[in-house]
Amino acid sequence: MLKPFSDPPRIGITMGDAAGIGPEIVLKALSDKDLRESARCFVIGDWSHLRSLASKIGVDYSLGPATVPHHDEDCDVAVFDLDNLSDKLEMGVDAAVTGKASAEYIECAVRCWREKRIDAICTAPISKKALSLAGYDFPGHTEFLAELSDTRDFRMSFFGGNLRVVLLSTHISLRKAIDLITKDSLVDLITFSNRELVKLLGREVSLAVAGLNPHASEGGMFGHEEQDEIIPAIEFSRSRLNINVSGPYSPDTIFLRASSGEFDGVISLYHDQATIAVKSLCFGSAVNVTLGLPFIRTSVDHGTAFDIAGKGIADASSMKAAIRLATDLAAGSREQARI
Amino acid sequence: MLKPFSDPPRIGITMGDAAGIGPEIVLKALSDKDLRESARCFVIGDWSHLRSLASKIGVDYSLGPATVPHHDEDCDVAVFDLDNLSDKLEMGVDAAVTGKASAEYIECAVRCWREKRIDAICTAPISKKALSLAGYDFPGHTEFLAELSDTRDFRMSFFGGNLRVVLLSTHISLRKAIDLITKDSLVDLITFSNRELVKLLGREVSLAVAGLNPHASEGGMFGHEEQDEIIPAIEFSRSRLNINVSGPYSPDTIFLRASSGEFDGVISLYHDQATIAVKSLCFGSAVNVTLGLPFIRTSVDHGTAFDIAGKGIADASSMKAAIRLATDLAAGSREQARI
Repeated sequence: MLKPFSDPPRIGITMGDAAGIGPEIVLKALSDKDLRESARCFVIGDWSHLRSLASKIGVDYSLGPATVPHHDEDCDVAVFDLDNLSDKLEMGVDAAVTGKASAEYIECAVRCWREKRIDAICTAPISKKALSLAGYDFPGHTEFLAELSDTRDFRMSFFGGNLRVVLLSTHISLRKAIDLITKDSLVDLITFSNRELVKLLGREVSLAVAGLNPHASEGGMFGHEEQDEIIPAIEFSRSRLNINVSGPYSPDTIFLRASSGEFDGVISLYHDQATIAVKSLCFGSAVNVTLGLPFIRTSVDHGTAFDIAGKGIADASSMKAAIRLATDLAAGSREQARI
Repeated sequence: MLKPFSDPPRIGITMGDAAGIGPEIVLKALSDKDLRESARCFVIGDWSHLRSLASKIGVDYSLGPATVPHHDEDCDVAVFDLDNLSDKLEMGVDAAVTGKASAEYIECAVRCWREKRIDAICTAPISKKALSLAGYDFPGHTEFLAELSDTRDFRMSFFGGNLRVVLLSTHISLRKAIDLITKDSLVDLITFSNRELVKLLGREVSLAVAGLNPHASEGGMFGHEEQDEIIPAIEFSRSRLNINVSGPYSPDTIFLRASSGEFDGVISLYHDQATIAVKSLCFGSAVNVTLGLPFIRTSVDHGTAFDIAGKGIADASSMKAAIRLATDLAAGSREQARI
């Protein structure tokens, strides 16, 4: 029998927009000793900003600066210092300087992954507006990461406990989201989700598809999308692509069933169907996982929270869950690669 | 200072369709001694069926038959016996005999309320199909109760802990539900919800309106319904009708906020927006409350569950919560009437 890897996974954590709560929740999350010991966490950010913040909010572990990601025996957490912020920062405000800095942390994280210095990337929130003020033209974090890694096919998903939800669409109107529900788009998403979840979990998976209408329309009584598009997509995926997928299930119970372990993943048909369920069931511990990227990427399920930035009151539970999940997925993925 | 009422509220509990789990969950729910002591519970059903079921599943309290709802000192729970079932019943099957019987329990409950014999009605699930086989032509339980009490304006709502959700529409397709979101329909619902919740809770209430689109469209970025219909309805209700209502809030966080006590009620724009949140947040303890009826009516949030009927494995937690809520609301309502 082979021995397990002795080295813990190396997680690159980008500190996000410095005018928001990103740096604060990263520092708070790492106060979890168990988390620090199960992974080698490298914070990618600005050393001077983090040091001053750590002293302000009071962390009970040691931080040290580094110019390459490495594990320094003299400190608990190494900060890969990009030294790209000035001493004077206005909290809670979109600015080109913080936007540019937050983009550089992300670029650096992808570079570190290419150079095989880290095994997974975990990102703190950035501001799209600040990114745009700095001249970066991306709809969001995920699209930026996709561009940096030449990824065409990627999807947003949420992980929380046993619940894993992949979304057919995200930030578009509900009417447009309904228009996007076609047999073809669903077969694509089922195929994609099956491939990516098998890769991440290292085993065969069972997928459930949520319906669109109340009670998944009860056989066509409330809407026709289940009969016209959703059922044909599930049947095609099962019979022709040999994927273990079933449904459509009533949207108001399928997420509960999956979170109790009945299915490995749920295909959700629109943004709020997924996010209402995930946020209600996971109570702040849901993690955003981008599927399709060539590396593992987890992220918090909230934004920069400019309204409470700098007040020391931000809740780090989602950040902690994101680092924990990146660690678990990276460990699993290395284990598979070894086998 | 006036003394509080010494008599506990009188709750009429209809046992529902005998081929489903209704009678079982009613008997199981009443095994809660605290529940039995805080209300006078009268089960409206078939004595012979309930007695035999009680002996089969084993209840630790005494049941007694009655021909009028009354509190018999010799037993813990009185069954108002309609004696309308035969000894041979097929479980899990829709039949005219059980459909007719279940309709008669409901008719009897409303009659008891008219005769001031009970203070609130709590209903176990019935089968619409069985009701139809017996010649009763109603889309559901609620419409039947509305007809019996000459009620025109009534709405489905869900209560669970601090969370109270009123629905703009229920069992229609999501596309049609979106079409029903107009300024006028929302002003009507806000006015109705404010009036009914004030009546039930006996105090001023604060209402929150959920948005329709992701993040309530972030100022029109993902859909126009917030700008065109929802915001005008909220502003009209606040400024012209003097109702304490606000929003639209992001649909994936407003239910959590309300359940933590930030608002007394949430106006939900479509079925699954409400039911995904309620079922995820309340874990089987959500109660269906019909607003607008001249009496208090609570109900379980699930159906007859024909697939597990007669097996003794049904979960009575929603039934228990429905009886508890009927008791609390009836006690509050009598207190208000007295003041």
